[in-house]
Amino acid sequence: LSTALINGLATDYVDYSDRGLQYGDGVFETISCFDGSARWLALHLERLRAGLDRLRLPFDRFDALTNEVHSLAEGKQRCLVKVIITRGTANRRGYGPVGDERPTRIVSCHEWPATRAPSGDFRMNVAEVRLGVNPLLAGLKHLNRLEQVLAQMQCVAAGMDESLMLSATGQVIGGTMSNAFLADASGLFTPALSECGVAGIMRRVVLETADAAGIPIRVRSVSIADTAGVTEIFMTNVRLGLQSVNWFNGSPLTSEEYATRLRSLINEKNP
Amino acid sequence: LSTALINGLATDYVDYSDRGLQYGDGVFETISCFDGSARWLALHLERLRAGLDRLRLPFDRFDALTNEVHSLAEGKQRCLVKVIITRGTANRRGYGPVGDERPTRIVSCHEWPATRAPSGDFRMNVAEVRLGVNPLLAGLKHLNRLEQVLAQMQCVAAGMDESLMLSATGQVIGGTMSNAFLADASGLFTPALSECGVAGIMRRVVLETADAAGIPIRVRSVSIADTAGVTEIFMTNVRLGLQSVNWFNGSPLTSEEYATRLRSLINEKNP
Repeated sequence: LSTALINGLATDYVDYSDRGLQYGDGVFETISCFDGSARWLALHLERLRAGLDRLRLPFDRFDALTNEVHSLAEGKQRCLVKVIITRGTANRRGYGPVGDERPTRIVSCHEWPATRAPSGDFRMNVAEVRLGVNPLLAGLKHLNRLEQVLAQMQCVAAGMDESLMLSATGQVIGGTMSNAFLADASGLFTPALSECGVAGIMRRVVLETADAAGIPIRVRSVSIADTAGVTEIFMTNVRLGLQSVNWFNGSPLTSEEYATRLRSLINEKNP
Repeated sequence: LSTALINGLATDYVDYSDRGLQYGDGVFETISCFDGSARWLALHLERLRAGLDRLRLPFDRFDALTNEVHSLAEGKQRCLVKVIITRGTANRRGYGPVGDERPTRIVSCHEWPATRAPSGDFRMNVAEVRLGVNPLLAGLKHLNRLEQVLAQMQCVAAGMDESLMLSATGQVIGGTMSNAFLADASGLFTPALSECGVAGIMRRVVLETADAAGIPIRVRSVSIADTAGVTEIFMTNVRLGLQSVNWFNGSPLTSEEYATRLRSLINEKNP
């Protein structure tokens, strides 16, 4: 039995000429679902829409998509639902779309993965692989993810739980699969994502929750030198939630103050 | 009837969980075939191997692949055979491969496309979309091609035949689907591809042919300012061959000297 719905049909197969495969011409979302309910679905759909707009990908089946997310999440205590929208099958070779492509909609359901790191021992280094700078694609969760694939390979080989990635220009951007929040004597801050990186849903939830609670977070450019005086780091994505980093580049980080406070504020508001 | 062989089988379908689709985790080649013969196949396979090595993608079915290219090209006067190798179906969610993936091999045959530009009227502008800098992926023909997709969309909308792409750091790299050779009073030169760009097979053939014929070509970093005094530009890929640019940013380029000379040297050697 397939766990995927592709353009509404229960199947595992896509055409090899799909531009998602040929060029990575599409966007995706990973949605955490609890008790059959898709958490922060409106925010996921908003980001998806922004990505589709940026790629000028004319997808309009949001109603069908929403129904499919619900139907795959239904009856499950917790799972991840992944949505991929590609520009669809190419009727012609070549990078440029002709304009008559019909988007492919893939909605698939996945078991909630086992966490690798024992609580209290989350280790992070700095990735050797750097992120190419492209303001046009910055923030989007698009299908061109080779940099993250290569960084994750090195991360796992190094026995790390996550790696902090820098841009080609040396700016701190985030983890291979998460966003980063850092705190020093001046307070909490997170990298701006105007050059590259993915604007995570949990990052947005943290920023909005902090704002509502009067906890200032500066969104700014962060150099690796700025990490020197850091007392707390936590990484975010919808699966990890707010994951405190216990070891950064081999040195211990003992504070989990901000993460603990923000986590409970978020859980209060989204039980 | 399918025109594709996927892992040796005549089918059009790949699993949606293939890492090629999920992350663009793979490489490809486009091979020009004449009279049933795959031109420069050894060079294509060499670049493919280099790309697979760089991505640590353990593909070893080169014999099967070569047979499949030949079998699809057989009996055709001219066609393009496209090869895609991905890391294969993911047994687990997440950017990092587990290590037990089996690569997917897609070999497909395509009609030789009609050329859009009438001879003598090839127009090129400078793309707004810039190429992210990533030395680790530079030169490879990998499946992360969103930058080219976006640049091609703008290229076509502007009524151009090709667009010259700059890197995020402002260096001239090449076309959206071709490499660039430029000539000024100092001679012929082509952009170095250590930051980004695809190291095209025809680019290599041009460089080796020129070298053998004693025509110096400097491979160097090229800024947009360096294009000011240029008298000739030609773009290369295995389909276009050596395509002279007749209009660059609205100004005419009248010389086709180097392109004509190199084209005939290449044709002599590869009848």
